[in-house]
Amino acid sequence: MRISELSRRSGVSVATIKYYIREGLLPGGRPTGITQAEYDEDHVRRLRLVRALIGVRGLSVHTTAEILRAIAGCDANTHRTLGLVLGALDTGTREHDQAPPAKKGEVDLLIAAMGWQVHPSSTAPRTLSEALTSLQELGIDLDWQTLLPYARLADQIAEVDLDQLGDSEDPLELAERAVLLTVLLEPALMVLRRMAQEHCSATRHLL
Amino acid sequence: MRISELSRRSGVSVATIKYYIREGLLPGGRPTGITQAEYDEDHVRRLRLVRALIGVRGLSVHTTAEILRAIAGCDANTHRTLGLVLGALDTGTREHDQAPPAKKGEVDLLIAAMGWQVHPSSTAPRTLSEALTSLQELGIDLDWQTLLPYARLADQIAEVDLDQLGDSEDPLELAERAVLLTVLLEPALMVLRRMAQEHCSATRHLL
Repeated sequence: MRISELSRRSGVSVATIKYYIREGLLPGGRPTGITQAEYDEDHVRRLRLVRALIGVRGLSVHTTAEILRAIAGCDANTHRTLGLVLGALDTGTREHDQAPPAKKGEVDLLIAAMGWQVHPSSTAPRTLSEALTSLQELGIDLDWQTLLPYARLADQIAEVDLDQLGDSEDPLELAERAVLLTVLLEPALMVLRRMAQEHCSATRHLL
Repeated sequence: MRISELSRRSGVSVATIKYYIREGLLPGGRPTGITQAEYDEDHVRRLRLVRALIGVRGLSVHTTAEILRAIAGCDANTHRTLGLVLGALDTGTREHDQAPPAKKGEVDLLIAAMGWQVHPSSTAPRTLSEALTSLQELGIDLDWQTLLPYARLADQIAEVDLDQLGDSEDPLELAERAVLLTVLLEPALMVLRRMAQEHCSATRHLL
């Protein structure tokens, strides 16, 4: 299809599509003339993924490009795909300070208690330490035992996630589903928590 | 204490403190002269809360002001406090379209299946419908039965949250804890989910 048709199908303007191609978020079309190129269904799908990451979650063009590079490097191994995708997503969090956050020790204890295998290059433990340190500075001091019930529930959520992810021979499709389920489901899970809080609170305090 | 001391204790510049007072995020000090005012521990605490909402979660000054107004209107009833805080937080999400999202019916079925009491004015169901509609447009179609395990886990998370919230005679303190636990714990919970995903994935696929 021509770029105008790709624009119509995806709802993304021609100018934005050309910008994404320049920034490496989308591969160029197959040239069919000096000023024309042909696009296919892979472009439509890729464009949808880019829009989801940038539009729905507000990721930067830079972070989105990193995630797409990680996906492009995936083979059909589910664990490798998920690892790459989560690693790339982690770069989306704010800049880390040099000094280890105050709560690092609690996070290490929690990970050990859960028996979790976390890759040494993962920045997730640091992000968690920083969140706990922020809370501590505001007077809410959570130690690893307090976090344990949350971590156990996270384990159960991850099992549901992996059931949803399923298996696919196509590494691109698998990576896409991993990104979508991990990133786009986050706001949904947080809203479920808020509705549940409202219900639990009513049950406890109004009866 | 003088405004310079408040600035030193909170790490917020004098100019920013004056800006927050003008915008209604912080009450003014008690005047002790034509150009001087006296501030107390309540100001330090309030300033910390403002910094957490704006700095850590990136909420707008407008949304933060709404949350603080809700807190100020709280009595010592835990459920009322939580309801007000969650209602104010919800205004922080993006603008809602007029048309009901495609997935509204699934969300209604889910809420009914869970037996959740959700206040008619709550925008949470709409936010959830929109997240599901986004996923559907990207080819991941989740119905209410698929969401049920997530909702059941959200219920368990909310119970842990309310245990953490505890009870307090001071409505301001209660509201602060509710905001901090709901808003600032979100990034921590999402990171726990990602670590758990990595571990679950390794367990399933590498053994």
